[in-house]
This record gives sequence, structure tokens and C-alpha cells, in this order.
Amino acid sequence: MTNPVIKALGRKLRLGVIGGGPSSFIGIVHRGASTLEEYYEVSAGVLSSNPEKSVEHAREMGIERGYATAQDMILAEANRDDGVDVIAIMTPNNSHYSIACMAADHGFHIMCEKPLTNDLDEAMALVYKIQASSVECCVAYAYSGYPMVREARAIIEAGELGEVRMVQCDYVQGHLAELTDSEKTNTNWHMDPAMAGPSLILGDIGTHCYHLASFVTGMVPAELSADLASIVPGREADDYTGILTRYKNNARGSFFITQAAAGADHGLYLRVFGSKGGLEWHQEQPNQLLVRRIGQPTQLLQKGGPGLHEAANRVSRIAVGHPEGYREAFANLYTDLAEVIIAQKTGVKENPLARYFPDIQDGAQGVAFVRAAINSHQKNGEWVSLASNA
Amino acid sequence: MTNPVIKALGRKLRLGVIGGGPSSFIGIVHRGASTLEEYYEVSAGVLSSNPEKSVEHAREMGIERGYATAQDMILAEANRDDGVDVIAIMTPNNSHYSIACMAADHGFHIMCEKPLTNDLDEAMALVYKIQASSVECCVAYAYSGYPMVREARAIIEAGELGEVRMVQCDYVQGHLAELTDSEKTNTNWHMDPAMAGPSLILGDIGTHCYHLASFVTGMVPAELSADLASIVPGREADDYTGILTRYKNNARGSFFITQAAAGADHGLYLRVFGSKGGLEWHQEQPNQLLVRRIGQPTQLLQKGGPGLHEAANRVSRIAVGHPEGYREAFANLYTDLAEVIIAQKTGVKENPLARYFPDIQDGAQGVAFVRAAINSHQKNGEWVSLASNA
Amino acid sequence: MTNPVIKALGRKLRLGVIGGGPSSFIGIVHRGASTLEEYYEVSAGVLSSNPEKSVEHAREMGIERGYATAQDMILAEANRDDGVDVIAIMTPNNSHYSIACMAADHGFHIMCEKPLTNDLDEAMALVYKIQASSVECCVAYAYSGYPMVREARAIIEAGELGEVRMVQCDYVQGHLAELTDSEKTNTNWHMDPAMAGPSLILGDIGTHCYHLASFVTGMVPAELSADLASIVPGREADDYTGILTRYKNNARGSFFITQAAAGADHGLYLRVFGSKGGLEWHQEQPNQLLVRRIGQPTQLLQKGGPGLHEAANRVSRIAVGHPEGYREAFANLYTDLAEVIIAQKTGVKENPLARYFPDIQDGAQGVAFVRAAINSHQKNGEWVSLASNA
Amino acid sequence: MTNPVIKALGRKLRLGVIGGGPSSFIGIVHRGASTLEEYYEVSAGVLSSNPEKSVEHAREMGIERGYATAQDMILAEANRDDGVDVIAIMTPNNSHYSIACMAADHGFHIMCEKPLTNDLDEAMALVYKIQASSVECCVAYAYSGYPMVREARAIIEAGELGEVRMVQCDYVQGHLAELTDSEKTNTNWHMDPAMAGPSLILGDIGTHCYHLASFVTGMVPAELSADLASIVPGREADDYTGILTRYKNNARGSFFITQAAAGADHGLYLRVFGSKGGLEWHQEQPNQLLVRRIGQPTQLLQKGGPGLHEAANRVSRIAVGHPEGYREAFANLYTDLAEVIIAQKTGVKENPLARYFPDIQDGAQGVAFVRAAINSHQKNGEWVSLASNA
Repeated sequence: MTNPVIKALGRKLRLGVIGGGPSSFIGIVHRGASTLEEYYEVSAGVLSSNPEKSVEHAREMGIERGYATAQDMILAEANRDDGVDVIAIMTPNNSHYSIACMAADHGFHIMCEKPLTNDLDEAMALVYKIQASSVECCVAYAYSGYPMVREARAIIEAGELGEVRMVQCDYVQGHLAELTDSEKTNTNWHMDPAMAGPSLILGDIGTHCYHLASFVTGMVPAELSADLASIVPGREADDYTGILTRYKNNARGSFFITQAAAGADHGLYLRVFGSKGGLEWHQEQPNQLLVRRIGQPTQLLQKGGPGLHEAANRVSRIAVGHPEGYREAFANLYTDLAEVIIAQKTGVKENPLARYFPDIQDGAQGVAFVRAAINSHQKNGEWVSLASNA
Repeated sequence: MTNPVIKALGRKLRLGVIGGGPSSFIGIVHRGASTLEEYYEVSAGVLSSNPEKSVEHAREMGIERGYATAQDMILAEANRDDGVDVIAIMTPNNSHYSIACMAADHGFHIMCEKPLTNDLDEAMALVYKIQASSVECCVAYAYSGYPMVREARAIIEAGELGEVRMVQCDYVQGHLAELTDSEKTNTNWHMDPAMAGPSLILGDIGTHCYHLASFVTGMVPAELSADLASIVPGREADDYTGILTRYKNNARGSFFITQAAAGADHGLYLRVFGSKGGLEWHQEQPNQLLVRRIGQPTQLLQKGGPGLHEAANRVSRIAVGHPEGYREAFANLYTDLAEVIIAQKTGVKENPLARYFPDIQDGAQGVAFVRAAINSHQKNGEWVSLASNA
Repeated sequence: MTNPVIKALGRKLRLGVIGGGPSSFIGIVHRGASTLEEYYEVSAGVLSSNPEKSVEHAREMGIERGYATAQDMILAEANRDDGVDVIAIMTPNNSHYSIACMAADHGFHIMCEKPLTNDLDEAMALVYKIQASSVECCVAYAYSGYPMVREARAIIEAGELGEVRMVQCDYVQGHLAELTDSEKTNTNWHMDPAMAGPSLILGDIGTHCYHLASFVTGMVPAELSADLASIVPGREADDYTGILTRYKNNARGSFFITQAAAGADHGLYLRVFGSKGGLEWHQEQPNQLLVRRIGQPTQLLQKGGPGLHEAANRVSRIAVGHPEGYREAFANLYTDLAEVIIAQKTGVKENPLARYFPDIQDGAQGVAFVRAAINSHQKNGEWVSLASNA
Repeated sequence: MTNPVIKALGRKLRLGVIGGGPSSFIGIVHRGASTLEEYYEVSAGVLSSNPEKSVEHAREMGIERGYATAQDMILAEANRDDGVDVIAIMTPNNSHYSIACMAADHGFHIMCEKPLTNDLDEAMALVYKIQASSVECCVAYAYSGYPMVREARAIIEAGELGEVRMVQCDYVQGHLAELTDSEKTNTNWHMDPAMAGPSLILGDIGTHCYHLASFVTGMVPAELSADLASIVPGREADDYTGILTRYKNNARGSFFITQAAAGADHGLYLRVFGSKGGLEWHQEQPNQLLVRRIGQPTQLLQKGGPGLHEAANRVSRIAVGHPEGYREAFANLYTDLAEVIIAQKTGVKENPLARYFPDIQDGAQGVAFVRAAINSHQKNGEWVSLASNA
């Protein structure tokens, strides 16, 4: 397979990263995802909120151009002939907005971590700004990059399951089942509402559920009823949410989301039922998709196996039976983004399947979902329209 | 292993069945469950609501004493020296109350199908009647008879998972994903509110979820918020319910219950998380129980395997790796009931583990749960106290 | 569903059991299997090799007519108008031959435990005797009673997987991973070659693998190469065998069989590949069958679910998603046997699917397989023809 | 986490690749694996056996220095100050020997695809050459890079399962279940004995099984008995092998290996039983390891989860529940190799766990295994000593 980026541009795309220093979980994930398929090279970076450390870390990590601050990087790269094409933002949530604005203003394409922002007004402002520009922005809902999640969407888009009638998405993690050390010492920004946003559980993983369910079904809930709770004694942040949803077409759904499930690993799980059949996907076995059709045997679809749609095959890169994981899913967001950037740069028609990547509107919808759930919870579970929160 | 019933009584217990004729799913399940461990023989029966057919069916089924009506059987058997000891009731839900009352009045022990009644007042009246008598009454929440469900309860009862913090129970069937023929012709009593009760989904399988969650955790929700819906166009009965729950100790939970999930089989699934760990059970793989403890490898417990509590081993009868299924689970309710009857008859102390069978109070709680959920739904999801519905 | 036995005979079939006393694993399995579908009642029995205890145990177990010895029972029942129809033999292997001969000579139908005999000459003599009589004989290879095993056979019989090319069957148990107490004290007849036959592992579970593979594929190996070993230090009996097989049509296969796999539960597992696809079945998840066809998604067939052959549906009795286990599989052998007996008694044409039960020839083939494997092992793995051992 | 390569050398390691052009499956796997953890950059390459295309492809793939031939690259890079440190060989099997010799002679470290060579004499010559030099050589048995395979080895190495008694490894693929187009037109070098070696099935995937079983148990078979076959009509190459093994300590084992299993995906599967317990691993669910200990509940170990050995945690890079796949496993061989190279370059003591990567001796043992299996097959399954083939 020829490298389409080099074929189009004569070079790889250049990525600048903001955030994701040596102690970060997500930094190496982004960088490795961007380079995995040889579409990008990491050319510049801001690797700490401490300006001196930022430059030092860049050097230690083999990143050619280290900058003291996001502002420095954006201004400098904008002035280089060989400046970066794309900026990846993986800083604390409350800083996404200003960095993304500045990046967009200087014409950089953007890969932004979720939630897009903590505040819905900021999110909407970003939508308008991006849509008015030629900047492409991907929000890193990484689970939508898995081939079998793409397959699930393609199946439903093709109408194979009929009209969607029920949607259930659970996300049950265990790493906050006890008070953590960083929580006791207030050294984890994820637990700090000022940085992480108004709801830990909704911002950190609830938005993933929301996007996954919407991505696969092509539907967003019309209204929801939510319960939020701090399950672990002594914790202020909410670590559980149960949400019931209703859709315009009378479909129903639920979310069961927590990080306080003692002993659990990851537990992201989706099932959808339509008028003709259903499907089921577990993130921890990402290369399988169960599809059930009325009156027919259950199908166990395999990544790379027979009977898949192009939407899945396109983002599956090694032979059937060779597992692809979280990093490959993440890489698919980067390659999608690359494809639309190339199409733009070369004037070639986009592959519509590349547009499966979560875009700025998906990011803003996630923020609206967070606000609606908090709103409902504050009204003790009253059904709240999502539209009125967006 | 010596047969404890024959040892105690010099004979097997005698069972009379009401309902469960040739075309019934549940009839052969009850009868086969009662005889599987050689504790009972089926001696009498009413096998149809049509008096003539009832007697005829009894003969065709090899049941010694066939009666025209429930009343006939109860009166006749009460007057025989070799009359039945136990009466199993598997008639439409709206008749449970009167039959159970008459059986209790004549001193027969009872195995009653769920839901106990359609009406909470009737359920409470039955509780008072039974509790004031020496009659034992088991309500056939059969899933609580599985060895690994007993194990789950024993683990939690022993405090091994700490304080319970989250409870999730789903029941996702597919057999009503489309309008059925019997529904169109009104020939299925399960779809008729007059017989099946005010909510199809809650009465038919919702009560199973409620009991299973309560049985395993030892806790009943303090309040709930419910959504009910008829998902399938053209159906009047509700075929979906999503319920959020809160417990006195600040625990949270949810139920996701439907019979309209296209392509789904059975889908009864429970998971519980406590302060020290969690567990997970799938009815379709009933001989396994996943147990997770903080900081320890996940355990995959097997029926008959090492590390189980007596509560599980007591009701597991064949060697590890030999699957036991639904009928063996059902049989365990019958053997439990037999054990307490024997203890009563012989004046021997009961094995407290035999008391794990669902009793009349469990039956009434199920009816209260149904009422509370309907109540909440009618108030558009308002949180409703269960106590105020019992 | 009308009871076909009572419909035909006006009564249930009567079963006499020989062996399977109170401390036996298999006794309650046979008795409960026979009565589960209400086709049989247990009317007579010999419950111990000790004549006095035999009669006493019968009484304690609620069996109407207890006899001192097998001979007593056969003679007495042969002279009763209401004598038993079928005799179930579950005594130590070395006694099967003489009991089966006597039962057949007196016209009783037979349910015999496996292996049929320890000696091939005896097995062949039984084949001739039974075939020359009107006696029906089922050999209790119980795993062939599972609905999904029946489905597997039906799929292959229908040619859906093309020509069979590879067959793999493993049986990996752990209960003999250490020297057992009964082994040290010589109190377990299974470990005594005089009673259990020349190879522990082949006789006890190897014959199950052999039959299962043959039952599903409809093919018996032309030749085999075997290795036998006593894996556990201090054990004389062999507790492991690895076998390679070749079939007439150039297909290949293997067996990996042991009871000395520390920590293992049961581990009976079959997979078959043909020219058009393959299938896979695990006894510990007996209600599922994986079917793979070239170029198509893998199918996960479910007992009671859509897309099954009549051969499976016929022996599946409760609704999809309600697990059926080992005892239901066992019961299917009894109901099959009952159906052919009824057909014989009433002169009605048999359902050919009832002939799926393992018959006397299947029993003898199992004994031939044991002999061939021992023969090959004694020649250090030389390929040995099965035909020359039968 | 600081990048240890840059910390030690002030730069990444430089990799030169030979083979793995645009149409290759394995090329992008090697390159992406090398860069995933930012330990390497791909600096040079030979991307086709056609000299012109080789250079062209390098340019199209963004590889800085493209060469016409392997010889050109080795000579040129040896003379550069910034020449590559490591050479990865992924050409047809029959060319591994000469390229590896030349690379070693010029002091390059080596990553070589398996099988190491087609010929045992060449393999042994390579062992002597490498061992006499300071060159590190990793043979790309990639499955040994999975964290849970490392865990399996660590468990056994620590004696937790006692003495190993049984080893079973299956590899059941389906992509050659029918004659392929490239086979009919002789355009797939894997099917050509002159390039791929004397046995398709043994060279292509049999060596993986052999290494995996040896890697985990720390034992190589003393002798084996093998059957080889061409299952698919019209195929010359063997596409099936069944092998029985015996170990010095009386342990037994088997291999069941094919690429002709219609409908199968990948099917690499290992289980090991020792005197105290057993373990089981499936490549298609690589992040799980089942561990069974006598008298204890089965443990389901998870990559990144509690209770793992350092050997596993060291090569697991993202949080529990985030699946890592084949490419991450592959990357672990590269990072291991990097660690020993750094240790050598800087004079620091190696981490012994980095030595888990498959080395030149492992490569040669694989070739000896192939020869022994062919030898046994040619003698119709005679038991053959592996020592006499090495």
C-alpha cells in the first residue's frame, strides 16, 4: 500500500503536541498513534506547563523543536515554512478552549482531547470559529476509531437492523474505587472541578459513552433523566452516573457509568437493538462484534474477517486474528484526519468514510450532554431536553 | 447420599399441580424439577381451566389423580390420608391469590409462580395469612436456585466485597421484538392486563430482576425512578423498562429490562460492586461467577469447583465441569422447600441455607416493586419510595 | 406436548437399574434422566454388590422393587406382567458383558454405561447377540445427547461443511492431577485394571472423545498413532494419551486426553473442519456451537435459537436462553431409546432422528479404539489400523 | 517515563530495513513496531528485490536513505558516522542467512524474521558467528512479546505451577483452506520450497508454536513423532501437521497446526499443566491469561491488572482494560533488543528481563524442530530425538 500522505504532499504531515509530557498516560498514545501508519512525524512540542521543563522534556523525548509555551509554539510554527500542519491538544480540560482558538486562528488543524471544553458557551464558540474556517478539528473520542465500532455504525447506517429502538452503553471502571493518594493531596487535575469541569464522571468517561452511542446509532437523545453520585465516602467529585434516555423516534436507552466499581478494569460496552436485530460490542474484546438478526443465527464478526463493510476494513490494517488494540484505534483518528487534510490540500475529493472521525460538533454535543445530565440531576431526575442545553 | 425425605418420612413428598398443562412451557419444568432429586412424586393435578380437559390431561400425563378444578383438588386432597403435601400454582397471575388462599387454609404448603399477585393488597393479605399459619410458601423466582447465584449471595453476606455500592441487573429478551400472532389475536394471557397484571414487562421478568438483585445483595432499593415504554409499534403492553435505584446506604443501581430486543435470547445479567470488590453473573453461562477484588486477580468461580461456600455446594449436585441448567436451578427451590417441610414435620432443626428459597415476603416485595415502578413512570420518572408502596 | 409414551402404551416405560447406589455419581444421573421428561418410572433396582445392602438401598431410595442381585432382578422382572421394560447397567466395566447378555436373553432393552466392555471379543459377542434379537441397546455416551452436538452432526450430515478434513477432540480433566486417597488405598475400581479395563484414560474418557468425534463427523479413523503415559509420579494407571489419526479420505485428527491436568475442570472440546467450513463445541458451554463457513461471518448457534436443524430442536425442550445441561443431555438418550421402543411395541415407523442414540456398534467401536491405541502405544507409536482391531 | 534510549545515547537508535515493501504485510508491522515507543527511527532501507524499485519505494515511504540492494546498504551504512545501528531482515527465508552473515560481519545488530534459515547447517553457522561477535540478534517470534505470554513464562519460571507435565500448542489458521490464486500461479514465495523451506506449515507457523511452547515452559522436547499432510486437494505443500512430544522429565505434549482450517481466523493457543496447576492463553484474546491452581479458583489475569510479575508489567504500556495487540507485542521485541544494545553501548548492566527476546539460539532451535518433524514424518511417525537434529 502506497503511503497516501507522502504521495500527495511529498512528505509526512508534521504534528505539534501540546501536553503529554513524560509522566502522562496519553502523551505517548497520541504520538505513537500519529506515527504508527507513517502519515505523521512529531516535529514540535510543549511538554510541560513549566516553560523550562517543557523545552527540556522535548529534547529528552527526541522532539526536534521544543517550546516553552503553547503560545510560543503556535506563533513560531506559523512563521516557519516547515511548520507543523496539525496541533494536538492534551492539556487539562479548562485550557482546551484558548489553545484551540489560537491554533485555529493561525490555521492549524487540530486534534483535541475530550471533553472539548468544560463550558458549553466555549464549546459553541469553537464550533462557530472552526466551521467558519478551513481548519479541520478532530476530538479524540478514541473508541470510535475501532474497526468494529465503525462496522457497527455501518450496519446501522445501512438499515440492516431497521429502526433503532434501544441503546445501552455502560462504562464501568475501577481505578477510583478507593480514595486515591493524588485525590487526598489534591495533585490530580482530573479531580479538580476548576480544571476538569463540573462533573468528573461525565467529563472523563461519560462523554465517551455519549459519543459512542451517538456515533453508532446516528441518533442523539431528545431528553434524559440523570442521577449523579459520589459513591466512595470522602470523595467530593461524582464517580457514578445512571442515565435514562428517550429519543425522538420513541427509542429508549440507558447509561451506567462509574470509575468506582471495585475490581473492574475498563468495562466500556455498547448494545443497540433495532426493529430487525441488534448488536453488541465490548471494548475489552474490541476485534469482535456480535450481530443478531431476528430469525437468524447470531453472527460473531471479526476485524479483518468476512462480511464486513468498507467502513471497517478501511481502518483495519493487519490480517484477521491479529489483534488490534487501543493504540490502533487512536491511530485511525489520526489517519482519518490526515486524509481530509490531504484532500483539502490537494483539492481531491474526500473519502466520506474519513469523515467518521469525531468532529467539532461531536465535541460540543458531548459538552451539551454533560450540562443536560447535571441539570437533570440537580432537578432530582427530571427529564431534561438536550436541545435546550445546546 | 441418602434421600433425606424418605429417611425422614418413609416416603417421598406428594405434589399436586395446578396449571401447566400439555401446551405449557412451565408445567414440565415444575414437575421435572420436583422429581429430579427424588424428593417428590407428582400425585395429583388440575391441568386445564376446562374441567373436562383437566381430568383428561392428567390421565394423558400419567398423573394419578386428575381433578376438574383447583377447588376440587384442594378439598379432595385435604380429605385423603395420602393427600398431597405441597401444591404448585402455575395458573395466570390473577388467579394466584384465591388458589393460594384456599391451599393455605387447608394446610397445604405452596410453590407459587411469580408474580405472587397482580395487586399489592392481595399480596399483603397473603403474607399475613401465610405468616400466621404453619404453611411454607415458595415463590418461583427460579434464578435464585442457581448454585453460582447462591455463591454470589454467600460472598456478599460474608462481607467479602465490603459494603455494597452499586447493583446493576439487566434482562434483555427478544421474543417480543415483533408483534406476535397470539398478541394480534388476543390469545396470550401474558399480554392481557386483566390476567397478567398492570405491566407486562414488570410482572413477567422485571420481578425476576428485582428479586435477583435483592437476593444477592440482601438490600432492597429505598427509592426508584422508572421509565416504561411500548417499544414495538402497535403494542399496548409495555415491553421495556429502564429503572434507576437508590439504596439507604447511598448505593446506586439500575435495571434495563425488555422483551423486545430483536435477536436477543435471554440476557439476564447481574453485577454488584462493593467497597472491596465486585461480582458478575450471566444466566446464560450460569455455572460461572466472576469475582473481582481490589488489588487481586479476577477469579472465575465454577460450580462444583474449589473455593465455594457451602451455600453453593449444597445445591450443586454433579461434578465440576458438568453443566447444570435452568431445570436444576428450579429443582433447588423444590429441594429447599422439601427440607424446611421435613424439618417442620420431624421437629428437626432446619438448615438455615434451605431458607434461601424465595418466600412469601419476597413475593410481596416483587409486587410492591411493580407498583412503585408504575407509580414513578406515571409521574414521569419522579423518584418514588418503595416503602410507601408496600 | 402430549406424552408420546403414555399415548402409545397407556403408561410410562418401567426402568430397572443395576448399580448406581447412594454413593454413586452416576446413579442419580441415570434415574433423574429417565424420569425428567416423564417417559419412564424407576420400578426396580439392584443398588449394591452386597445383596443385603442392595435391597435396603432400594427401599431408602423409594424404588418399589429392590433385588439382591442382577440375576434375581432379571429373572423376577421377566416373570411379572408389570415387569420393567428397560434395564440400565452402571456397574464396574468388567461386569457389563454378563449382565447385558442376561438382560438381552430375557428380552429387556438396555441402557449400558461406557465402555461397553473391557474386552473386544466380549464387545463383538454382544453386538452379534443384540443384532440377532429385538432388543434395543443404548450405550451411555451422554455427550452425544446435547442438542448442539446433534446440531453439529446434522450440519455435517447435510454436507454444509463439505468433506471433513480435520477432527480434533480434547478431554482435559484435573481430578487426578495428584494421587488420590482411593488410589493409595486401592478402593476406587476405576483405577483397578481388573475392573476398569486395560487403560484408565482410554476406557474412562477416551471412549467419549472417540464416540463424540465419530458421532459428529460420521467417520471413524482408518489408523492411529498413540502415546500413553502415567504423568503423575507414583501412579500405575495411564492418565494421559495423545493420539494422531488418519481417515480414509486423507483427513487428519488428534486427541489430547488426560485426567491429570492440574486445575482443569472438564475440558471436553471438539472441532471439525471440512472443505467449506468448520465448527467448534465446548462441553462446558454446551448450548452454543460456533460454525464458520469460508467467506462468511462466524455463526454462534444457540440451543433453541434460530437456524437449527430438527435434529437439535427435537432434543431441546426449554426456551432459548434457558441453559440445559448434562442431565438434560443424558435424558435425551433415554427419550431416544424410549421412542424406538415405542415404535417397536406399536409397530409405528421410527423417527430416524431417534436413532442418533449411541448403539451397540458404537459401544463396540469404542472398545476397538481402546485396543488399537494400546496396540500402537506398545509398538512405540506405530500407526495401527482400527479395522484390524475390530 | 523518560525515554531510556535518548537518555543513554542522546538520540534514538537507527534502523535499516531489508524487505517489507509497500505490498508486504510484515513491513509496516516491523517499522511501526520499532517506532511505537520512540526508541528507534527508520533511517535506511531496501524495499524491493528490484534495485530500482527499492530506491523508489524508500522515497515513497519516507525512508531517508534508500538502497538498491542489501549489500549496498550494509556497506554504505557501515561507513557512515550516522549509520544504522540495527538491521531488520524480512526477506524470503532462503536469503536470511547470507544477509544476516553480512550484517553481523559489519557489526550491525539484527532483527531477523523467522524461520531463521531453511537449513540447519546455516542456522548453526549463524549461531557460532553471532555468539563469537558482539552482535545482538533477535528472531521475530512476535508472540513471545505479548505481556501475558511473558507472564505465563514468569509464573512457570517461579515454580508456581510446579514441574511442567503437559504442554499443548495449537495454531489453526484458515487462509489456505482453498487453493489460492497465488498458489495456482506460483507467485507466492511462501508456497515455494526453494524460498520458504522444506515444509510450508512447519516453517511458516510451526516454528511459532515450537518457540511459544519452549519460551513459556523453559523446556524443549526430547523427542517427537510427527504427521505431515497436504489436506487441500491439489496442493503440494504440506498445510497440516500433528505432532506428539515427550520431554526429558516425562512430560508430554502435542501440536496441532494448520493453515487449511476452513473458516478459522488465527487460532494460536497454548496451555501448560504442571504438578500444581495450569495456564491457558489464546492469541486472539491476548490480554488475558487463565491460571488454574489445584484447590483454588481459576484466575483470569489481565494485562495491566493486579497480581502480575514484573516480566509482564515491564512490557505493558497502557492502562488495564485498554487492549494491546499484535503490533505492541512486536514492539516489545524491538524495545527489548534496544535495551540490551544500550546496555552494551553504555556499559550498564542489562535488565535480565530484556533477555526474554528470542535470540539466535531460539532461531536455530526452531530450524532443528522443523528438521526433526520432517524426519519423523518421513519415517512414518517414528519418535525422533531433537538433539540428533541439532
